[in-house]
Amino acid sequence: MRRARFGSSRLSLLLLAFAALLPGRTAADEAAAGRILGAALTESRAYAKLTHLTDRIGHRLSGSEGLEKAVTWTAAEFKRDGVDRVWTESVMVPHWVRGPESARIVLPVDREIPVLTLGGSVGTPDGGLSAEVIVVESIAELEEAGIAAHGKIVLFNKAMQAGFGAEVGYGSVVGMRTRGASEAARLGAVGMLIRSLGTADFRLPHTGALRYADDAPRIPAAAISAEDAELIRRLSDAGDDVRVRLNLGALQLPDAESANVIAELPGRELPEEIVLIGAHLDSWDVGHGAHDDGTGCVVVMETLRLLRKLGLEPRRTIRAVLFTNEENGLRGATDYAERHADDHHVVAIEMDGGGFSPLGFGITAGPGGVEMIEAISKQLEGIGASQVFPRGGGADISPLRKKGVPVMGLVVEPTRYFDYHHSEADTLDKVDRRELDRNVAAMTVMAWSLAELDGTLPESLPEIEE
Amino acid sequence: MRRARFGSSRLSLLLLAFAALLPGRTAADEAAAGRILGAALTESRAYAKLTHLTDRIGHRLSGSEGLEKAVTWTAAEFKRDGVDRVWTESVMVPHWVRGPESARIVLPVDREIPVLTLGGSVGTPDGGLSAEVIVVESIAELEEAGIAAHGKIVLFNKAMQAGFGAEVGYGSVVGMRTRGASEAARLGAVGMLIRSLGTADFRLPHTGALRYADDAPRIPAAAISAEDAELIRRLSDAGDDVRVRLNLGALQLPDAESANVIAELPGRELPEEIVLIGAHLDSWDVGHGAHDDGTGCVVVMETLRLLRKLGLEPRRTIRAVLFTNEENGLRGATDYAERHADDHHVVAIEMDGGGFSPLGFGITAGPGGVEMIEAISKQLEGIGASQVFPRGGGADISPLRKKGVPVMGLVVEPTRYFDYHHSEADTLDKVDRRELDRNVAAMTVMAWSLAELDGTLPESLPEIEE
Repeated sequence: MRRARFGSSRLSLLLLAFAALLPGRTAADEAAAGRILGAALTESRAYAKLTHLTDRIGHRLSGSEGLEKAVTWTAAEFKRDGVDRVWTESVMVPHWVRGPESARIVLPVDREIPVLTLGGSVGTPDGGLSAEVIVVESIAELEEAGIAAHGKIVLFNKAMQAGFGAEVGYGSVVGMRTRGASEAARLGAVGMLIRSLGTADFRLPHTGALRYADDAPRIPAAAISAEDAELIRRLSDAGDDVRVRLNLGALQLPDAESANVIAELPGRELPEEIVLIGAHLDSWDVGHGAHDDGTGCVVVMETLRLLRKLGLEPRRTIRAVLFTNEENGLRGATDYAERHADDHHVVAIEMDGGGFSPLGFGITAGPGGVEMIEAISKQLEGIGASQVFPRGGGADISPLRKKGVPVMGLVVEPTRYFDYHHSEADTLDKVDRRELDRNVAAMTVMAWSLAELDGTLPESLPEIEE
Repeated sequence: MRRARFGSSRLSLLLLAFAALLPGRTAADEAAAGRILGAALTESRAYAKLTHLTDRIGHRLSGSEGLEKAVTWTAAEFKRDGVDRVWTESVMVPHWVRGPESARIVLPVDREIPVLTLGGSVGTPDGGLSAEVIVVESIAELEEAGIAAHGKIVLFNKAMQAGFGAEVGYGSVVGMRTRGASEAARLGAVGMLIRSLGTADFRLPHTGALRYADDAPRIPAAAISAEDAELIRRLSDAGDDVRVRLNLGALQLPDAESANVIAELPGRELPEEIVLIGAHLDSWDVGHGAHDDGTGCVVVMETLRLLRKLGLEPRRTIRAVLFTNEENGLRGATDYAERHADDHHVVAIEMDGGGFSPLGFGITAGPGGVEMIEAISKQLEGIGASQVFPRGGGADISPLRKKGVPVMGLVVEPTRYFDYHHSEADTLDKVDRRELDRNVAAMTVMAWSLAELDGTLPESLPEIEE
């Protein structure tokens, strides 16, 4: 029973049937986009959803009670929003816990400093770890230091700037966080510290994941504030031996059960063709995961609710996926790609850059893909979100990208994201309701338009497995 | 032996002797101001001094080892700078220690939150304190709540803005911090929390002093971040009973010995007339007291060094006072005013608003005082510091003001001061070297000009004791 299944009004069905007759569906597209924009900007429940997710559930690190609650609540919320096809897919995720942690400069001054162990780090030995610090600005500089790092704690002290790209911003420094501990350990270092990958100066450590290499000893690693990294650098530059004591109680527990949450609006004509919209449900265990990635989750959820509410039944299936364990394992993304290897994803869009003002979409697809998105994006000029960037995607949809699926990312104004990212300050108040609603509008128009499109985006060449 | 005593070059003495012959000393004034500005902007050691004070000594709460070290180091530094008359005056100061502290929202969610006990607060009973929270925005609103506060923890949740004055900014909210605990206790409240008096949003609590009234029970009091105050407010507005657990290990120990540090350049003509320039040496026990009030201290210190170095011997005595215990007792200020009750202070200038770009000076004096300062301030137009504000002073010189001594405050650009004030983020990196040096220039020109002035500033009417 179509009506029972979708619950949309007869009027909507009639309108859609009529619109389907129009050449190129242009008038219908425009009518739908207008209705979506109007609804997203006037009656969005995205902020209310985000308030629940952050205030009531809070952080959602893999293995935590918060993540479990978030799985249950988001699945129920999709149903409350009138989405009929909602299910979860069980995924085993790493269960790393921070434990008590402290850091102290003990020479040449004596000073407790804020610290956040990096996710996945081993703890320090009983009684803690105390060693002299060697300060470097890059992995290359560490390698030059060579033997000088032996027996030391290596501090990576490189300031990051806000912005896109590999030369500036997160992309230019994140390798130190993920690989730095193993690189240091290979040289005999006993610990690793990193100046927080953040763009504000409020004595705030920012955590994040590391990845131990198989061929290096596992040494404890933690982030300290920009201020304390600079203090250590100044003391060291002055010729002092700087010694730090670390007490990190981090533990890796047995894997825990979690789940991807999936909900979809089945396609009215091409139900086997899937437009995937995704975000990640997990967060770090500090702050409340508001921008990272609560905003992405509620935008994806609200996209389905609005389409349902407006009675817009898409030509192709629009599938929302709230991935688990993006932050420290990507197990949700991996499991989804394996389990749905035979599904026909015509495009996958991720939102995981914060909920600031949307600028547009980045796209990675075969030749002609950018132009197709540019045509669709004109509908988003009114909300300032019509830019198209020549690369796009997201961590959770990267396994699909590797198979050739065209992938896109919703791109937002980037200035402040890394002020708060992975820190205690990633809380609800950092999200502007109107900016968030513009993201809802952008995502909903884009998903709807891609589901309605006459053709599909050209696939990119499948990547050689890295 | 004049030369041995002041160590200035013969050339300087000749120049000064010559300048003294000029009508109104105008040409000499201008020549001196130009030399001061040049030296302050090109060879200031203020930032190097501040680096030592913050990096090597660190925080300087009354009773701490840091404050003791700061007394010793600043006195020695004045001497190293060639100032001959340097001494300390012993003052007993309150010795409050923070101890271990934690706060947790336990209902309707379970969440550890950052907290800083207010200075002077009692600790919680053994095992901590757990109670329902009532949220108010002002002492007036608390009084309206009346019996509803009984048995509760009162949360004062009022956002502050940056800026001068009693209607906005610190002046409009600080009364809640100093008096709020006693006001709440009178209504039977068992604890007090305050949304941090700060203007940034990085989950950062800002401490500060409270004052218990004699006629109210002493209840524990602490500052929480703006984010967590808003979270509690939202949960409370939603109709939930919000319960918080506080474990505050604060202790009031017996008074400790500290000292005011005093250094002066004796007046060449009117040595009994004193131009006092002051700042406070103590700080809170979080952060490193960089802006509050390390910048004031090093500016005052550098003022004497520069005048000595330039061989400028002032007509009146210029006395630098680094007061102890401004933050939680004002014992240094009180002791100084009592001990020096018979000294003839013609003016007292304090710098205690941070080391951002100087705007000019505020002045509280008798009729005509503002105009005299306006005339002097023209010399500071080139560094953007020539504004004159019709009220001025500082906490440490308020006992002198009450006796009628004209008082002034160096006024700096106020936007960011309360981002960092009384928090872990008040560290060296927040201070811009060039902005700091402009403060040195402003203070030195002003002190020199007031020491040289033909007349003195008109006294204000002594105030009735509050």
